[in-house]
Amino acid sequence: MEEFVMEPSYPGPQSAHHELRTAQNSAAFVLPTLQCMEEVNPCLTLLDVGAGSGTISVTLAKAIPGGKVTAMDLNAEILPRAAVIADLAGVQNIEFQQGDVYHLPYPDGSFDITFCHQVLTHLKAPWNAIAEMMRVTKSGGIVAAREGDLETECVWPELPGLLKFHQFVAGMMNAAGGSSTGGRQLLSWALKADAERGRVTVSYGTWSYNSPGDKRVWAQALMDKVRAGRLREGGLKSGLVTRADLDEMARAWEEWAELEDASVAMMHGEIVIQK
Amino acid sequence: MEEFVMEPSYPGPQSAHHELRTAQNSAAFVLPTLQCMEEVNPCLTLLDVGAGSGTISVTLAKAIPGGKVTAMDLNAEILPRAAVIADLAGVQNIEFQQGDVYHLPYPDGSFDITFCHQVLTHLKAPWNAIAEMMRVTKSGGIVAAREGDLETECVWPELPGLLKFHQFVAGMMNAAGGSSTGGRQLLSWALKADAERGRVTVSYGTWSYNSPGDKRVWAQALMDKVRAGRLREGGLKSGLVTRADLDEMARAWEEWAELEDASVAMMHGEIVIQK
Repeated sequence: MEEFVMEPSYPGPQSAHHELRTAQNSAAFVLPTLQCMEEVNPCLTLLDVGAGSGTISVTLAKAIPGGKVTAMDLNAEILPRAAVIADLAGVQNIEFQQGDVYHLPYPDGSFDITFCHQVLTHLKAPWNAIAEMMRVTKSGGIVAAREGDLETECVWPELPGLLKFHQFVAGMMNAAGGSSTGGRQLLSWALKADAERGRVTVSYGTWSYNSPGDKRVWAQALMDKVRAGRLREGGLKSGLVTRADLDEMARAWEEWAELEDASVAMMHGEIVIQK
Repeated sequence: MEEFVMEPSYPGPQSAHHELRTAQNSAAFVLPTLQCMEEVNPCLTLLDVGAGSGTISVTLAKAIPGGKVTAMDLNAEILPRAAVIADLAGVQNIEFQQGDVYHLPYPDGSFDITFCHQVLTHLKAPWNAIAEMMRVTKSGGIVAAREGDLETECVWPELPGLLKFHQFVAGMMNAAGGSSTGGRQLLSWALKADAERGRVTVSYGTWSYNSPGDKRVWAQALMDKVRAGRLREGGLKSGLVTRADLDEMARAWEEWAELEDASVAMMHGEIVIQK
């Protein structure tokens, strides 16, 4: 994995596992198509919707060196971090913009590729977001989306605190209007957005943390999330968990990271829509 | 996918989905290692444990044309079918043998590669099988295993008959001493078989059926399984299901295969142990 996590302005462990994400580990399903498209047109334009701190956007920009990536996120505060990451990687064919996936600030047919990862599964009306992504995509271009399916998460060993954590996160996600079974629903969302079935390719991918270093990054991020911040506060307010539950979850992740036979994995749904 | 399913002695739909399996779709995680090993030694020996009708064994044999594959199965009745498939594929560097994974009929250090797919997850003591696979593997060779994790199965739409089917199959598997969470446990089983952690590589892979043709093959195989044969009889005898439940499951798969937004996917655990 490319290392974006070692420099001084590192924002802390809550983003650490997000910043392990690259085009190679999180957008591999679309890279061959991207390469074919680039052979025909070396000046591709790509919109990354919900880019966050931009580690995927930056590696996508590297994959289309003659093209241009627009990294967009609803949260304007994350964009300077994405710019730092682009600088660190020496990537210049990228720009950053605040925007809302339901109302993309671009005219029809603006991009050759419109991409998102781990965005739709958090939305109440993901099909509207897909329709909007299709709108800003050029005819002959593609919309590509990859979304986790939280209910496929498998963690081993099954420490009670980890199973409790899974129930908690899935419960919070669904209570907020998202879906803990988003990955498996991607195709149905695309059809609801009026994509033609014959123009949608479906695949599934995985991620996993099982090496000592990866496990520590993953466990630390989740320990920090249950010990402070939005997830903890929201969970306590919702009544889904108690302080004791959250403490148990943090201790379980701490224990898990040190176990030799520990691993965690999850499946993602992936679609490519030919516009 | 390579087509093994069109010839006259086709054994019927209960095996149809098994025979869609090839090294490319079911052993991709080990193919790069195989290629590296073959560059050093073009005369590799490979044991495929629980080879069934041998579609994976045959495509593995194609991947090591100068080597030799031994396709082994507990069920001697399936082996002639595997021989037919090898003939159809024009593969000659393969032999077939009956054998038990707990007591492999080979001396220590017989094979460069010992492989299995969807075998360990059906066993009561999978670690003993892995230890036995390690025994027959040469020093410097590898043991490679890929096992489904049934609890990660995601099917869409979630027709009640399909959810019932999932519960039924997982229940039968666990009642028979297997594990519906085998994929996530592979690493722990390898360590229990005395593999060193530093010599085990863990990965996860997926399969999915979502195209009209693939969906029909999959749905037909499962419809036939609940309408007649061992799964049906075992289920009724166990009391896990009634005839009405089984009818509902068959109708649900029939309906699912025709739905435009239908898909099914599952995650597999994968390990490679360096001997």
